[in-house]
Amino acid sequence: MREESWKTAVTQIKPGEIRVRGYDITELMGRISYAETVYLVLKRELPSKAEARMMEAILVASIDHGATPPSVLAARTILSAGNPLNAAVAAGVMAIGDVHGGAIEQCARIIQEWATREGEPATLAASLVEELRQQSRRMPGFGHRLHGTDPRTVRLLALAEETGFRGRHIDLAVQIERELERQLGRRLPMNVDGAVAAAISDMGFDWRLGKGFFIISRVAGLVAHVYEEWTREKPMRKLGPPPSEYDGPEPRQLKG
Amino acid sequence: MREESWKTAVTQIKPGEIRVRGYDITELMGRISYAETVYLVLKRELPSKAEARMMEAILVASIDHGATPPSVLAARTILSAGNPLNAAVAAGVMAIGDVHGGAIEQCARIIQEWATREGEPATLAASLVEELRQQSRRMPGFGHRLHGTDPRTVRLLALAEETGFRGRHIDLAVQIERELERQLGRRLPMNVDGAVAAAISDMGFDWRLGKGFFIISRVAGLVAHVYEEWTREKPMRKLGPPPSEYDGPEPRQLKG
Amino acid sequence: MREESWKTAVTQIKPGEIRVRGYDITELMGRISYAETVYLVLKRELPSKAEARMMEAILVASIDHGATPPSVLAARTILSAGNPLNAAVAAGVMAIGDVHGGAIEQCARIIQEWATREGEPATLAASLVEELRQQSRRMPGFGHRLHGTDPRTVRLLALAEETGFRGRHIDLAVQIERELERQLGRRLPMNVDGAVAAAISDMGFDWRLGKGFFIISRVAGLVAHVYEEWTREKPMRKLGPPPSEYDGPEPRQLKG
Amino acid sequence: MREESWKTAVTQIKPGEIRVRGYDITELMGRISYAETVYLVLKRELPSKAEARMMEAILVASIDHGATPPSVLAARTILSAGNPLNAAVAAGVMAIGDVHGGAIEQCARIIQEWATREGEPATLAASLVEELRQQSRRMPGFGHRLHGTDPRTVRLLALAEETGFRGRHIDLAVQIERELERQLGRRLPMNVDGAVAAAISDMGFDWRLGKGFFIISRVAGLVAHVYEEWTREKPMRKLGPPPSEYDGPEPRQLKG
Repeated sequence: MREESWKTAVTQIKPGEIRVRGYDITELMGRISYAETVYLVLKRELPSKAEARMMEAILVASIDHGATPPSVLAARTILSAGNPLNAAVAAGVMAIGDVHGGAIEQCARIIQEWATREGEPATLAASLVEELRQQSRRMPGFGHRLHGTDPRTVRLLALAEETGFRGRHIDLAVQIERELERQLGRRLPMNVDGAVAAAISDMGFDWRLGKGFFIISRVAGLVAHVYEEWTREKPMRKLGPPPSEYDGPEPRQLKG
Repeated sequence: MREESWKTAVTQIKPGEIRVRGYDITELMGRISYAETVYLVLKRELPSKAEARMMEAILVASIDHGATPPSVLAARTILSAGNPLNAAVAAGVMAIGDVHGGAIEQCARIIQEWATREGEPATLAASLVEELRQQSRRMPGFGHRLHGTDPRTVRLLALAEETGFRGRHIDLAVQIERELERQLGRRLPMNVDGAVAAAISDMGFDWRLGKGFFIISRVAGLVAHVYEEWTREKPMRKLGPPPSEYDGPEPRQLKG
Repeated sequence: MREESWKTAVTQIKPGEIRVRGYDITELMGRISYAETVYLVLKRELPSKAEARMMEAILVASIDHGATPPSVLAARTILSAGNPLNAAVAAGVMAIGDVHGGAIEQCARIIQEWATREGEPATLAASLVEELRQQSRRMPGFGHRLHGTDPRTVRLLALAEETGFRGRHIDLAVQIERELERQLGRRLPMNVDGAVAAAISDMGFDWRLGKGFFIISRVAGLVAHVYEEWTREKPMRKLGPPPSEYDGPEPRQLKG
Repeated sequence: MREESWKTAVTQIKPGEIRVRGYDITELMGRISYAETVYLVLKRELPSKAEARMMEAILVASIDHGATPPSVLAARTILSAGNPLNAAVAAGVMAIGDVHGGAIEQCARIIQEWATREGEPATLAASLVEELRQQSRRMPGFGHRLHGTDPRTVRLLALAEETGFRGRHIDLAVQIERELERQLGRRLPMNVDGAVAAAISDMGFDWRLGKGFFIISRVAGLVAHVYEEWTREKPMRKLGPPPSEYDGPEPRQLKG
């Protein structure tokens, strides 16, 4: 009925010994930063100096975005209803779905696929945007509700330049931004999700890890919000929703 | 019916500007490590060099512990049943309850309370262990299923010594370990949860953040496991449980 | 490292045969109602006619309460962020914590404990309310934000009378309502959670199943809300929170 | 930033009054069964006698399937790790993903789409199975790990016949079963998910409610399992996984 044993390549455990991707965890502690260890866990190798610098910046970029995202609303709602911190943070992580944070996965998937095709980034971007338009689909990772230009994107691309990590994927993403403006006639600037998607693609990460980057980064912000809710607010405070208007069937009675 | 506006002191958002605890996020990116930013988010101030070093080590210490913990089982089970990565990681975070990772919160709560009492750590530890024994309660953060001596504890305490962060809480925790052995007649060594609890207490963190530290650290390991399940295993593989034995009512029939 | 087999007394599975608490599921289908089968699953025996009638009414009572509860907010938020229906409903169930739905468990626990003590319900209620007041604790299951008199309570108690299920626990709950008014000088009428707690106690259910009753009932309402969100609303609509006010550290810069 | 009010057509709430799809909840309590009220909540109208009978049977059919499904493993794991009943049941609901329970949604989607096409069910089934084969896709709702013939399917189809609810969708599902055998050369009998999908389709439910039916039904089984774990087992018992085999990088050391 079930498997005899599981296989895992993440961590080896023996009495008195814990080896993460082959490295003794006590050797990593105090010598390697947390972000570098995240890199090791996800990529199976330790990062170079340049990779480590990118990794730190990527994780810092998404650490928090104030009280408005659905993940914060979900997390605070669960705590406020009388649940422990872990359940509240879990609800926040659950909210990181296709339309909140999920753009990293979707954008990375698209640019990783297109980057393998032959041709210049500008040409590929033109075809890609054309194709999306014909299918009435949006390009994930571009446009932001609040930020005209997303300051995190600007900073991340500059760092990629500095560390030598600007490659074909970032080039493609930059061209997509241009094409979106050219073909749609309005700016849909690359947001932080798009920039992270492009950067991790140039660093060689699989697009399937896209949401993972966002979750690892944002979970710290979620803990801060849940802690704030726990220590500054009353249980069951009126978090929402606004007064609701009922538009279902009129009052009626059972027959017979 | 609901509040007019929420208050938050974590992050300030304006078009084109994101300030985490007052600092522009683009200034943090590339200059401050992720672990330092986590410190900022949780403690409202940037860490000193020594605090940053402790923070990195604490987050590295709990990043993964192989395939055995319930959080890994829960996370892989959810992915395997055909759910997205975020739902799987959320289930893993949900599993970080009172008896898995929760010991940091419980242990920090106890030592933070006892550390405010007058007296030497050794004396306090003797009374505390005595009291727990009378109530037939266990001291959270001590003893481990697998590790006789938890290597992460040894390393974390050495780092605390090095960075000057060994204070009254770590002293108390060390004395508790001695008292447990003295009064119970067997070793129940401080595990990594106990060591993290003591270290964050000496760094001035509220015990209510205890589970938060574990979650922030472990979420990277959970992403790695969920990714491994996604890319190496078939959906609905036989994860468990072992063949179950039914011990309920015998076969019977409806009457009438 | 792990158990050889699990024990379960809920359902026995063999190829071609499924027996719930001993009964063949195909014999239950079409002859026994769903609520009766829920009773069987939770209580190990089929209900009498009177027990079945109470069971149906208890499950109907909590099926939905409009858009305001935190479980609805959590569930809709998760769906709206681009997650599947099951993840959204799961978030709603997660919200059913100590202060939302949890009152059934807490109230049933208290009245089941006090009902075993000697004395008349009126006398016990007086002592209980006195004790709670001295500890500055509230009696769970009494008082409601919106309803002065909770119409579901009135109906459920009438049905309990009719079916002969008004016993010591309901008597005690009714006396608690009187005592709360007498000792506090204001009405805190028994709400539906309190009425369900009292009714299931008189029906012989363990208080640990309290939240379970609420969850089983409400999950249908949650599915209806999530479906409504899915089919009538746009993804990532502005569910909340209200505009937030930042009251953290002022803008500042990194040193050095 | 956010909407002024929400719209909902499920339940109307006023002080002292709760109307589900227009009906006063106190009128429903004691007169209408829980399954009928679920029908009302999901379909906006009360069921006829025949619809009510189908509804009861559908909800009974999926109430539990022993200890083996991933939802039970997830739920017990969360409780066992020291979390409250609601978090454990939530994890179980979260597990009801694309490959566990999700077949109702997927199967109903396909047969609802194909049933609108012109032609006899047998002809449509032949084309559909042909198409799936060409795309190397499986037909959801057919085949079962354990049951050769799923006894719940047999019973549900018989009831549909009896109540007059066998229509074009059930006919199509029956023909699909025949075609699968004819074209694949082996039996892949309709399982309970397929039968529920066909039945709710003939009853006029939207396929988007497919997972909802499964969740509403199964949540009672999950509560029973979580309660059993809570009251019969020790926290953190060795639920799984089996001993894991590490196949990652060999032990290695940091350089420098």
